[in-house]
This record gives sequence, C-alpha cells and structure tokens, in this order.
Amino acid sequence: MTPLQIKALTFDVFGTVVDWRRSIIHEGSRLNREKALTINWSEFADAWRARYQPSLSQVRNGDRPWANLDQLHRESLATLTHQFGLDCFDQSELDRLNRVWHRLEPWPDTVPGLLRLKRKFILATLSNGNVALLVNMARHAGLPWDAILGAETARCYKPLTQSYLVTAQLLGLAPGECMMVAAHNYDLEAARDCGFQTAFVYRPTEYGPGQTKDLEPTCDWHVVADDLIDLAVKLGC
Amino acid sequence: MTPLQIKALTFDVFGTVVDWRRSIIHEGSRLNREKALTINWSEFADAWRARYQPSLSQVRNGDRPWANLDQLHRESLATLTHQFGLDCFDQSELDRLNRVWHRLEPWPDTVPGLLRLKRKFILATLSNGNVALLVNMARHAGLPWDAILGAETARCYKPLTQSYLVTAQLLGLAPGECMMVAAHNYDLEAARDCGFQTAFVYRPTEYGPGQTKDLEPTCDWHVVADDLIDLAVKLGC
Repeated sequence: MTPLQIKALTFDVFGTVVDWRRSIIHEGSRLNREKALTINWSEFADAWRARYQPSLSQVRNGDRPWANLDQLHRESLATLTHQFGLDCFDQSELDRLNRVWHRLEPWPDTVPGLLRLKRKFILATLSNGNVALLVNMARHAGLPWDAILGAETARCYKPLTQSYLVTAQLLGLAPGECMMVAAHNYDLEAARDCGFQTAFVYRPTEYGPGQTKDLEPTCDWHVVADDLIDLAVKLGC
Repeated sequence: MTPLQIKALTFDVFGTVVDWRRSIIHEGSRLNREKALTINWSEFADAWRARYQPSLSQVRNGDRPWANLDQLHRESLATLTHQFGLDCFDQSELDRLNRVWHRLEPWPDTVPGLLRLKRKFILATLSNGNVALLVNMARHAGLPWDAILGAETARCYKPLTQSYLVTAQLLGLAPGECMMVAAHNYDLEAARDCGFQTAFVYRPTEYGPGQTKDLEPTCDWHVVADDLIDLAVKLGC
C-alpha cells in the first residue's frame, strides 16, 4: 500500500526535542552555587525522571483521576526532597524548581530543524506534557509549533491509543497523514499501531553517558534520522 | 481590587482577528469568474454566518452531540446550495468551499499587532473554531499563536462558562491572569463573568457596510482599542 501523503509531524518532546537531563543539571548547578549546596543533580534528574512512567501508569490504569504532568512532577519532586537534600527549599522554591520542565533547553539541531520542517508540514506536539508546560517551553526555547496537543488535550497519556487518535482527529487528519517523530521505540510502536507513519531520531545521550535503551531503532520505521535537521533533509524540506 | 497581572491574551478569532465576510466574498468572486456564475457572495456570506449561532445553540443546548465547527459549517452550507445557485458544485467542491474558513484573511493590523503583543504575552485563540480550522488559518495568514485553544479543546461552545474556564486552566493560569480580546460585547460579558480581564476591539465593518451591532463597547471593558496595534500600545508592548 502506498503511504498517504504526510501532512503533519507530531512530536514527542521530552528527549526528542529538548534535553531534559542536561537542562535540569544546568539549573541545579546554579542552585548549588547560589545556595552553597552539594546536591548531585545528575542523580536527582535521573531519579525524578524514573518516577515519570510509574506516575503516568497510575492515571493510565485508572488508579487515580486525571492529573496533568505538572501535578505528577510536583508529587514526584515531593518524594525526593529529603533523599536529595532539598529540605532547605521552601514550597515556592520547590514550585519554581518543578517548573524547570517549562524551561528545558532544545538540542542544538532542534530549532533549525523545526523551522525547516515547518515550511512543508504542520508541526504539533504529541507529548505527555501538559499544555501550559509546552506553551511556556515553546516560548522559552523558540519552538515554532503550529499546535500544542497531546495527552492533556486527549485526556489520555501515551502510549494509550486515544492519545494518538484524538490528536490526529483534532488536526483534521487521518492517522496515516501524520508522522510521529520520537527518540523512543515504544512511542513509535504505539503510533504505528494507530496507523501513523513513524520517524526515529537518535538521541543517544538523552539519559546521559550510560544510556542503554533506544540507542538504535528496533523496527523498520519509515524514517530514521540522526537529528531534526537530518529529518528535514530526508523528508525533502 | 487590583487586577492581576495579565499573562495571556485569549482571542476571539472570527471578526476580531480575521475578516471572514470579505474573505468569503473574495473567494466567491473568483469562483464566479472561473465558473461563469452570478452568485451574490455578500448575501451568501451573510446567510452562511446567520446560521452560525443557531447551529452552535443546538450543541450548547444538548439537542445534539458534540459537532465541531467544520461539521456545522458544512451542514449549513448544504442548506444554502439550492437557494444561492450552488447546485453546479459537486460534493468535493462544496467540501473545498467549506474550508474557506481555514483560509480567512487577517485584518491589516492583525499580524503586526499580534507580533508586538507576543513579545509580552502568551497569545492563545479562544474561538469556537475547531483546532484544524485554526491551525490551517494560522499557517495561511501568518498568525503567531502560542496555543490553539477554545471550544473544541474545552468541548464547549462560547459563551458557555466552561469554554473560558477550561482555556485558562489549560494555560495554567487563573482567569484573572487572562485578558479576552474580542470585537463582540456578548463574548466579553461571558469572559468577564468568568473572571477574565477584557479588551474590546472595534471592527465596525465585520458584517459589511450596514453593520448594526457591536459598533461600540457596551460596558466599561478594561481596554477599548481601535485595532490590535492600538491594543499593543495600550498594553505597553
């Protein structure tokens, strides 16, 4: 079957578009200097992110009502404060730290790659991040999205089917007219199962120097790209 | 009470940001030339738009399940084809005409005004238009939205309360941190009742030379502006 013409690219954001780990370490290092602390922010970032999928699972499984990612991040942060020596942070400082996810930095290729891709395709987020987080991040990092969509607008976290299908529907497109762009094989598997086309982007240092997963594409995705500029080249932009 | 600091401007779109009537007449005139027709597109545009509020009311009142604005526009169009002499249009041509709402033109001040406002504020749609319509319009007209929100993401048409409250919530803001920008007093009244700040923009020719409503602000809105550039000036951008 000939693939449909791609009209929109839908992006995973954390890891694929922005370098969450380095951004948290960077902001944490500044806090260490300002407050004369010796927190290990690499370990902290990894521990915070390690609570991401378990916290989403509770919502996905219906063990709790809908909660957006800002809320889930804040709850995870609360469980880590004592362990990592953040007891000296008051609640408003913890709230501010929680919003580091709104201030994540893009990978070097991200903005030029997106600007090229935008000439030809609708660019939408399809992220588990909530709308406010993604809007603030886009303004901070200069990400030229046409639409901020994903889990919150679908009321359903990836990789559940509805998160992909509702996003395509909101764009007024058939799933096959959308290409999911992600650095994570599980995300592309779920998108493919919904009928999306798929593009794998290498982000071999997302989890730091010791990353063990998603180092390679695990299926024959429609496109495999070194980064978002390479994706633009491969999609003829 | 001191007003909260404004963080986001939420915009009505049809009439406030784009000139739907002139755009439909313009596209219709081209169709007249191409197909040697003599359709009165001014009357057609007014008749099409006259079916807008009644069609929304059916959804608002729960007389029918959710339907997005593309669907409602398409149904209204079907009721007008015979009356206006569009019988020579086949279904795909009518589908294409229905998408004229995706190709509306901005007022002359719109794009420069929005670009100035964007320096200081989050810019979001709070429109009864569906996401696909607004995304395509933004790409067509160069509208630099940070977020495409409104009726479809709230599953509720203006002026019902939830359309405003859900939009503020998705932006992660209190209603009072949002300013509704509209050329229509009824929209500002509903937004104000939800706690939004309000800006009235004069669009005295939205409904053509014989416009009778919304020629003046009917309340003491927080700001009254001649156009979006004037709004930028008045908001200190």
